[in-house]
Amino acid sequence: MSTISLHLNDTIVAPATPTGGAIAIVRIEGPEAIRIADAIYHSDRGTTLSEMKGYTLSHGVIVDGQRRIDDVIVTIFRSPNSYTGGDMVEISCHGSSYIVGEIVRLAIGQGARSATAGEFTKRAFLAGKIDLSQAEAVADIIAAESKAALSMADTQLRGGYSDSLGALRSQLVDLASLLELELDFGEEDVEFADRSRLLALLGVIGEEMRQLTTSFATGNAVKKGVGVAIVGAPNVGKSTLLNRLLGEERAMVSEIAGTTRDTIEECITIDGVLFRFIDTAGLHETSDRLESMGIERTQKALKGANVVVELFESPGTDVVGPTEEQHIIRVLNKCDRHEIEAPEGWIAISAKRGDGVEELLRAVRATVDTEAIMNGSTVVSNSRHYAALVRGLGALARAEEGLQMGASTDLISMDIREVLDSIGEITGAVTSDDILANIFSHFCIGK
Amino acid sequence: MSTISLHLNDTIVAPATPTGGAIAIVRIEGPEAIRIADAIYHSDRGTTLSEMKGYTLSHGVIVDGQRRIDDVIVTIFRSPNSYTGGDMVEISCHGSSYIVGEIVRLAIGQGARSATAGEFTKRAFLAGKIDLSQAEAVADIIAAESKAALSMADTQLRGGYSDSLGALRSQLVDLASLLELELDFGEEDVEFADRSRLLALLGVIGEEMRQLTTSFATGNAVKKGVGVAIVGAPNVGKSTLLNRLLGEERAMVSEIAGTTRDTIEECITIDGVLFRFIDTAGLHETSDRLESMGIERTQKALKGANVVVELFESPGTDVVGPTEEQHIIRVLNKCDRHEIEAPEGWIAISAKRGDGVEELLRAVRATVDTEAIMNGSTVVSNSRHYAALVRGLGALARAEEGLQMGASTDLISMDIREVLDSIGEITGAVTSDDILANIFSHFCIGK
Repeated sequence: MSTISLHLNDTIVAPATPTGGAIAIVRIEGPEAIRIADAIYHSDRGTTLSEMKGYTLSHGVIVDGQRRIDDVIVTIFRSPNSYTGGDMVEISCHGSSYIVGEIVRLAIGQGARSATAGEFTKRAFLAGKIDLSQAEAVADIIAAESKAALSMADTQLRGGYSDSLGALRSQLVDLASLLELELDFGEEDVEFADRSRLLALLGVIGEEMRQLTTSFATGNAVKKGVGVAIVGAPNVGKSTLLNRLLGEERAMVSEIAGTTRDTIEECITIDGVLFRFIDTAGLHETSDRLESMGIERTQKALKGANVVVELFESPGTDVVGPTEEQHIIRVLNKCDRHEIEAPEGWIAISAKRGDGVEELLRAVRATVDTEAIMNGSTVVSNSRHYAALVRGLGALARAEEGLQMGASTDLISMDIREVLDSIGEITGAVTSDDILANIFSHFCIGK
Repeated sequence: MSTISLHLNDTIVAPATPTGGAIAIVRIEGPEAIRIADAIYHSDRGTTLSEMKGYTLSHGVIVDGQRRIDDVIVTIFRSPNSYTGGDMVEISCHGSSYIVGEIVRLAIGQGARSATAGEFTKRAFLAGKIDLSQAEAVADIIAAESKAALSMADTQLRGGYSDSLGALRSQLVDLASLLELELDFGEEDVEFADRSRLLALLGVIGEEMRQLTTSFATGNAVKKGVGVAIVGAPNVGKSTLLNRLLGEERAMVSEIAGTTRDTIEECITIDGVLFRFIDTAGLHETSDRLESMGIERTQKALKGANVVVELFESPGTDVVGPTEEQHIIRVLNKCDRHEIEAPEGWIAISAKRGDGVEELLRAVRATVDTEAIMNGSTVVSNSRHYAALVRGLGALARAEEGLQMGASTDLISMDIREVLDSIGEITGAVTSDDILANIFSHFCIGK
């Protein structure tokens, strides 16, 4: 951690908002933050920022020598009562990119340096204000596109993992250190750690970790938007259905920016959960070489979908083989045109007229159980956490087996250490510079 | 003004920053602002916002009933010490569009309504915090792309017009009211207003207005970026020169977003002034019908340019006829290849090697006299102000002529009233709902 600690002595500056709005915010953080802000700021009342208490405001102008840059409001946060735990100044200026650029330039001229992506949040983590999973939650909160995704990130930010896993982990630490003590006694046949208590505790921790691991399927889908593929034979009404869904839900619809052009995705929020509807029109309709590449991608998108909505004109056999994890909803379309009865468990609709579409939306929504999320239970949505949990569960199973088989203390101890490490990685109790750099590089500048 | 005054009793809400950054700001303004914010906010310390003084902060959460929306910092401004003059609350939340949307929705649920474009600034104007030209300066400040443009807008925001014109206008008002008094005496031959004093004052005001009108050419060019057309025969090195300029000034270069595709514009800031270099390559190179439409637009861009840089391989005659207002800079290119002497007043360069390019940039920069702008003198950059000044100068000339010719008091009085109106329109002393609606509709929401 040495390189990081060194940087903590720097004072950093960055815009915290995009420009182009009415106002913009520039943040300066670090031991020199208030001195630097003072050097480029004149308050209306002639007071200096260094005289001001934390959590107070000042109105004045940013100046470059004699030249006025902008009318601003400056907010002072004093250590430790700030986002990062250090001294922090927020300058609220007009939302011009030129002005923001000038303020950052002036702060750098006074000794600040440009903040790297996520550096403010990284400092909050390094100062012990938040743990690693909470820091990651900040990025998720900023990216949240639905009620459920926000609720999940918010639970995490409030220390969901620390509460769920932290307490169990510290119990395990106690027992593990007794095991390590036994190792110190070498050849002597002592048992400080009660084997049955250890086994019971591993059982409780394992159960908790398994629950969290299981929650990842839902958590990840909710965070990224639950994929719903609409499939079926040509002319069965797939595009009509998609248009109907979009038309009815116009207010909640948006096209995802950056979606690959060849698979069309449209997003609809149903009862607080974002669903990405994937149009697979054209799936079976070409043998053209270039187009077949597009179809390949559609097939891939289809495989990645959580829900498959399969359209039929008359009850028939599935044209797709859904995977085990996929929910399949079979739909009999064009019920305005024929008198065919929908089989048990099917939904009869008329995409054209709209009959049954609401029932279909409810069925789609029901594929995702968000009770735990909305209740504020801890749900895993981060693939780094998922990977750590899976690794931890493997080590835990080995430790349990070792205890039951009467394996040697050092083998058991090694496995338990790996369980501890995997849990610790989630909250940042155990971490490395590489992990930190990777996590914070996914943040935006200014956070 | 009745419809507008009615709306002043509303409480309005809008995001004041774009989303997608680390943080975002939502503004609530109006008599109910603090009550509405209190209804959707729980402070960490259990205090209510209504107990708080102006210019103070509170940390807590935005809630929708029992559901947490986000950790926020709330800033309170109390009337009249706010941007608008009314009570105002700024909520600083995480920069998620979902969160910002929820906060706006909650505020609306408590009785606020969505603010229209520029409505916060419009309220500042209606409350008498700023005059109309200052309000317009706010929009210019947000859009400022260079030091000179910002300096000009900042002077205007600090009351440049009010100072320059306001004092003269109030003297004219005094004399005009004496004229009106004479009219009340009808047939009696009285002269309350000293004709020679009136004539002298009109002279002073006219001089001031003429100076401001003249400054428009520079002011408008600096605000929008000074147009520089590079012209010349095919293969004389126009594109090489543009690339050289961009290459050398890479740090200050950006392509203007939204530029029409067919005329290529590249921006370079030279010593605080933004120049838009227009590439006219291809001007004489095609007779294709579609392409000739593009050339027509290039011709138009050329006519609108403030500066024409004409490139030659050997001294010759101009291929373009510059207008009277245009500065022309004649350049002898390829000085690395030949020994031809540049005529008096020409600049010899090698676009390929870079010789003489710095001299050319200085010559381009010298076409714009920004001394007045950088000194903080009032410079007209707004075409609405320019139009009002031109109209006012016409009326002023008629009034002067009338006084010299001994015209009747009511004719003179009418012309002077028009002079007063035209000046008053700039600062908003005389205005109409139409003008106001038009001005503020060009603002962004949240300002």
